[in-house]
Amino acid sequence: MFADHMLATIEARGNPCVIGLDPRIELMPDFVTRRAQTSNDVDEVGKAISAFHERVIGLIAKSVPAVKLQIAFYEQYGLPGMRAFVDTIQIARAAGLVVIVDAKRNDIDSTAQAYANAFLGGTSVFGHRLPAFDVDCITVSPFLGRDSVEPFVKACAENGRGIFVLVKTSNPGSGDIQDRVTETGNTISTHLAGLVAEWGQTLVGDSGYSSIGAVVGATFPAEAAMLRTLMPKAIILVPGYGAQGGTAESAAVNFNADGLGAVVNASRSVTYNFGELGLSADDFDESVRRSVSEMAASLNVAISSRTSASA
Amino acid sequence: MFADHMLATIEARGNPCVIGLDPRIELMPDFVTRRAQTSNDVDEVGKAISAFHERVIGLIAKSVPAVKLQIAFYEQYGLPGMRAFVDTIQIARAAGLVVIVDAKRNDIDSTAQAYANAFLGGTSVFGHRLPAFDVDCITVSPFLGRDSVEPFVKACAENGRGIFVLVKTSNPGSGDIQDRVTETGNTISTHLAGLVAEWGQTLVGDSGYSSIGAVVGATFPAEAAMLRTLMPKAIILVPGYGAQGGTAESAAVNFNADGLGAVVNASRSVTYNFGELGLSADDFDESVRRSVSEMAASLNVAISSRTSASA
Repeated sequence: MFADHMLATIEARGNPCVIGLDPRIELMPDFVTRRAQTSNDVDEVGKAISAFHERVIGLIAKSVPAVKLQIAFYEQYGLPGMRAFVDTIQIARAAGLVVIVDAKRNDIDSTAQAYANAFLGGTSVFGHRLPAFDVDCITVSPFLGRDSVEPFVKACAENGRGIFVLVKTSNPGSGDIQDRVTETGNTISTHLAGLVAEWGQTLVGDSGYSSIGAVVGATFPAEAAMLRTLMPKAIILVPGYGAQGGTAESAAVNFNADGLGAVVNASRSVTYNFGELGLSADDFDESVRRSVSEMAASLNVAISSRTSASA
Repeated sequence: MFADHMLATIEARGNPCVIGLDPRIELMPDFVTRRAQTSNDVDEVGKAISAFHERVIGLIAKSVPAVKLQIAFYEQYGLPGMRAFVDTIQIARAAGLVVIVDAKRNDIDSTAQAYANAFLGGTSVFGHRLPAFDVDCITVSPFLGRDSVEPFVKACAENGRGIFVLVKTSNPGSGDIQDRVTETGNTISTHLAGLVAEWGQTLVGDSGYSSIGAVVGATFPAEAAMLRTLMPKAIILVPGYGAQGGTAESAAVNFNADGLGAVVNASRSVTYNFGELGLSADDFDESVRRSVSEMAASLNVAISSRTSASA
């Protein structure tokens, strides 16, 4: 089941870092995009994206437990982008990484089921199963309400997968809806944290954690500390570290006193954290390795200073 | 610009019907899926979906103004499904239909921009534009707040496209978040209707309608009547008609006194509204033509009885 697999991989790698694979071809080094720059064949765009991610995954697969693919950045390149999405998933799985897709999908009953089929188990086609995109877990938006999330929860139970439900996002405007105080005296985020805990109850593994997790941004540490207590068994996916301004300390409040229970994502600050597009492949490799190792070290320090303070 | 094009196409066809193209291969007639049923080649699934939609579009293109593709049902068939998605868009555009993609996308700034690139204008690739999926308009979820919708609004302004922002969805659980009364005394839906009106102000065309529209389900007519008054210039996309229980009368409350300002979607009740999977192609054609013409007639009666009552 997802939660135990996630926790075991975190333990094996010794850190809770997730590296975001968000393709923006114009930000990639020249040595990867040379052919795409001069060719009129859009398939070269997809090939460059796959090659870039193959290189990044080769550099990080033994150091971190998971990658997060932001599907929007693949969709923006159309079908060649979606082919690169499938390639990147296969390369990451083959390298032993947990594959998270940041899709923020949400819809009504039968449509939510179609999204669950797409990512969390496959689609029935005349008696056989077509696996579609088939990953370990996805992010889910709860805007359409309880019945729009439950098909995803069911798919997690049936197929051993996981979801991260948006509870408090990392962007400046996240409060417009999520911080609203309702007639119950609670915010929307607080209400959602309760639902995450409820949905997750029956999917708690031997690790003590549930396959129904939550997204809580690294940019609002006070809210995060409160939300953590409302869903103690949820694995929290923490975006907003690095380029969005979240720090190791603000991310660390999402961890439990056992030093577990969260994963922290960085995208741009790892994969595009180099100077000139013309840098050499060796210099690129060095920049990725250094960014990952600095992130893991900072986070582990922040988590242990927090857990030792609370012990 | 989108709003004027939408209104002109409604006027030309004489009805505000949108036909939903939601591929579920096991519900399609045998004469379309025969090869997909026996082949092990998943590309046959995609080909059957494209062929089914080509047939449906041929039947409806001169009768209705628009089609709505629910992308979840394409994603559930993986890459072959996404190829069918692209095919279906091209066939629908070539037939002169307005193409709406029901995607309910939503994310933070740069990621929302990537989704806008994917559907509403294309992506810059080393000095040229890759059009990705390129349609007239998409549905957008507002859960992440104001800054998560504004990149879509900007893309509408720059590229003449449209969006429908989720304000009140058609599903039973839509109230879990959308009906919550906040500290302002308003519901989340009411708050969102205000934002839709605000975003739409600068994108009002000669038709008097704006390219920033809203989704309001046909299943909650009392709320719909109130929301209509809060965003008088928005085109409202009304799902929930037919299979979900919405009627012509409950859909009609979304129209203004001019008899305009909304489009009503039906999916299953048009494309899968036949008896046996083994029916003939002619009988299938007849079932689609009859469903569309009954829907258009019922809606036009309900709209005119409403507008004449209010006149």
